[in-house]
Amino acid sequence: MNQPDDEKLRLSRRRFLSCGFMAAAAAGFSAHGAPVTSGTPGAGGESSSKDAIEPFYGGHQGGIVTPLQRHTSFAAFDLTTTDLDDVVSLLQSWTDAAARMSTGQTARPLGQDDSIPASDSGDALGLPPSRLTVTFGFGASLFTKDGQDRFGLASRRPEAFVDLPRFTGDQLIDARTGGDLSVQACADDPQVAFHAIRQLARLTYGMAQIRWVQTGFTGGFPAGETPRNLMGFKDGTKNPPVKDAVQMGQLIWVGDEGPAWMRGGSYLVVRRIRIALEHWDRMNLAFQEQTVGRHKYSGTPLGGTNEFDQADYDATDKDGNLIIPENSHIRLAAAEKNKGSQILRRPYSYYDGANVTAERWPPWRDEMEFDAGLLFICYQRDPRMGFIKLFEKMSKFDMMNQFVTHTGGGIFACPGGIAEGGFIGQRLFEKT
Amino acid sequence: MNQPDDEKLRLSRRRFLSCGFMAAAAAGFSAHGAPVTSGTPGAGGESSSKDAIEPFYGGHQGGIVTPLQRHTSFAAFDLTTTDLDDVVSLLQSWTDAAARMSTGQTARPLGQDDSIPASDSGDALGLPPSRLTVTFGFGASLFTKDGQDRFGLASRRPEAFVDLPRFTGDQLIDARTGGDLSVQACADDPQVAFHAIRQLARLTYGMAQIRWVQTGFTGGFPAGETPRNLMGFKDGTKNPPVKDAVQMGQLIWVGDEGPAWMRGGSYLVVRRIRIALEHWDRMNLAFQEQTVGRHKYSGTPLGGTNEFDQADYDATDKDGNLIIPENSHIRLAAAEKNKGSQILRRPYSYYDGANVTAERWPPWRDEMEFDAGLLFICYQRDPRMGFIKLFEKMSKFDMMNQFVTHTGGGIFACPGGIAEGGFIGQRLFEKT
Repeated sequence: MNQPDDEKLRLSRRRFLSCGFMAAAAAGFSAHGAPVTSGTPGAGGESSSKDAIEPFYGGHQGGIVTPLQRHTSFAAFDLTTTDLDDVVSLLQSWTDAAARMSTGQTARPLGQDDSIPASDSGDALGLPPSRLTVTFGFGASLFTKDGQDRFGLASRRPEAFVDLPRFTGDQLIDARTGGDLSVQACADDPQVAFHAIRQLARLTYGMAQIRWVQTGFTGGFPAGETPRNLMGFKDGTKNPPVKDAVQMGQLIWVGDEGPAWMRGGSYLVVRRIRIALEHWDRMNLAFQEQTVGRHKYSGTPLGGTNEFDQADYDATDKDGNLIIPENSHIRLAAAEKNKGSQILRRPYSYYDGANVTAERWPPWRDEMEFDAGLLFICYQRDPRMGFIKLFEKMSKFDMMNQFVTHTGGGIFACPGGIAEGGFIGQRLFEKT
Repeated sequence: MNQPDDEKLRLSRRRFLSCGFMAAAAAGFSAHGAPVTSGTPGAGGESSSKDAIEPFYGGHQGGIVTPLQRHTSFAAFDLTTTDLDDVVSLLQSWTDAAARMSTGQTARPLGQDDSIPASDSGDALGLPPSRLTVTFGFGASLFTKDGQDRFGLASRRPEAFVDLPRFTGDQLIDARTGGDLSVQACADDPQVAFHAIRQLARLTYGMAQIRWVQTGFTGGFPAGETPRNLMGFKDGTKNPPVKDAVQMGQLIWVGDEGPAWMRGGSYLVVRRIRIALEHWDRMNLAFQEQTVGRHKYSGTPLGGTNEFDQADYDATDKDGNLIIPENSHIRLAAAEKNKGSQILRRPYSYYDGANVTAERWPPWRDEMEFDAGLLFICYQRDPRMGFIKLFEKMSKFDMMNQFVTHTGGGIFACPGGIAEGGFIGQRLFEKT
């Protein structure tokens, strides 16, 4: 008998493994240690936050309005195949694998034949589902690359799916930018997130290869508190409320204006933003607060009394200076200063080690510097009204720019959600 | 009145902040948002696993026999000063900052003057202590560098503190190897671990600079289960028991044979080991198991029935082949095959992105490859009887070597624990 879907979904990788081991032992396979797998494993029961499962199938992809997980593992891929059937096949296998992994299962069922490579690298066996979400996106180069309509999809590129312009200050590294396909795996466990990317990468062999990857994390701030980023400021105070379906429909989800495959989807803009932490740390506190437009420790807008106060952008001091400066970050980003433009941010910090930086003037000192900053991720219904509109102004005027450098990223069209039995972006590939 | 020490220690960064804010509000500083700090903040109370505090002061440094935290942030520093007083001063400020941070406080007390840089970058404000440990070590180059007795310490280098030999297969990158001082921050939160390294790095300005850094993580495996590494195998099954003080005294802690400053300390060997995951994933399961000497899913030694079974290194199959092959990883590493040599491993996985690899033969294909693997960390009483002895053999014969490359690391003398009021390695610097 089939179980209700939500019961199936509560089944953790841990439970799956335990059941597998018991079955394997009973079947006499324990010396091999290979768990017996099952398409519809036994009923779940107890749950904890680590066992929690985010639904994979539905009207929207997971990982967009999902409450922020602790870790992300992002990957952009370039297709090496020239055959559209390969692309469809890849997306089908990706969909199946992502659905399985989000419930804590292996990417593909583990077989019992030890004379072939295992279908899953096994590094997440025993780990709970950890709220894994896998969010897929399509790059502009899936539609047209080097002027070529490589897969016959050029005419299906949505009007809203524009290229990002070159912004003031951009220092994008080609090897960290763009890609035909994007995958963002988010989970409360870094090993679960990387496991997902690695298994999906294995499924691309012969059809695609990794273009760039980036990990990110966020601290375990208490529930209800806005997380701080590496600048030490709270980041996300003014995010639109993800539980407000009306606002999400207005701001985040593509509606009837988009093609069928994008309805219920969203546009992802991702930017790898290096922060000169050593420089930032040497600034006095008042200057940091002027730069952001908020108090550092409380998150309160300058001149306000609480973090969630509406900022007063007209207030002035006794000399007539604006309390929240003209070129402060929050003023330039505010919806009310941008005709209501809003984006949904899912920001992660990144820390990729340290490398050498050198002065370009005498005495040409060199020093090691952290390669760390913000993996800026945002979603929006229309990038022309979202990130592009906001950042065209901010890239020119934001006082914060002297501390941050955008070194990579991209824009991806993330299709609407997937029905069980379907695959990601399916309607894009249907013959009309 | 002073509170008992353990009560002080239970005070979380979160509680500290809340108390600070309330005090600040009462004192009329809420518009600044700057928490008032206190040397002995109010009494703690409730605790959770995230609020848990690992003791900083004691007979041994934390982070050695401490149950493995989820994240690590490792840093090696080179001293730029030539003045021993600077070294002492740095170690004093490091000690104080580490002690504070391990209880969830800022590295130094936050002042109320916003016209100067804040004494802590603030990115961990609101985060619980997360079992932070900070483990300090001294490199051989602190004693002698380029043949120079730079600080007058050369004669105090312990006999056991030998250089690592060049091992077969070593591909160590100079910029990822060695260092005068090492700091390993471990915590259950990556933001807490990086915060600690960043604050300690700030304290080095003008005296030292970062030489190399490396992060690591481990999955949230259920309590009592051996974690899996990125090869998908359980890693740590045969670790000596950290709760057995007698064994720790025999194997891990330096005793009377060492100088006073090293008693209760341990020698750290760290190696950044890149794993060719794509290559490994293409091997059949039986071959992977022969390589390790264990079954992958259960962790059971080949020929055994349970993970913790004593491996039978004499058992043969019907053709007379050893069940656990001559060149398998566990046979070469086994204490019983190395006259009892054992080390305490605290292994973390690392994932530093992906980069290009190219074939050296026709058709000279190139492909993106994960830069991921193992941040191998081990502690021992005497490296000549520990890592060096074990790895001299393993580096030559271990079947696993075809999948792994050691690209960096070092050996560091981690002094004994610190008494309140003292500083790390104090007795090394005392005039005799």
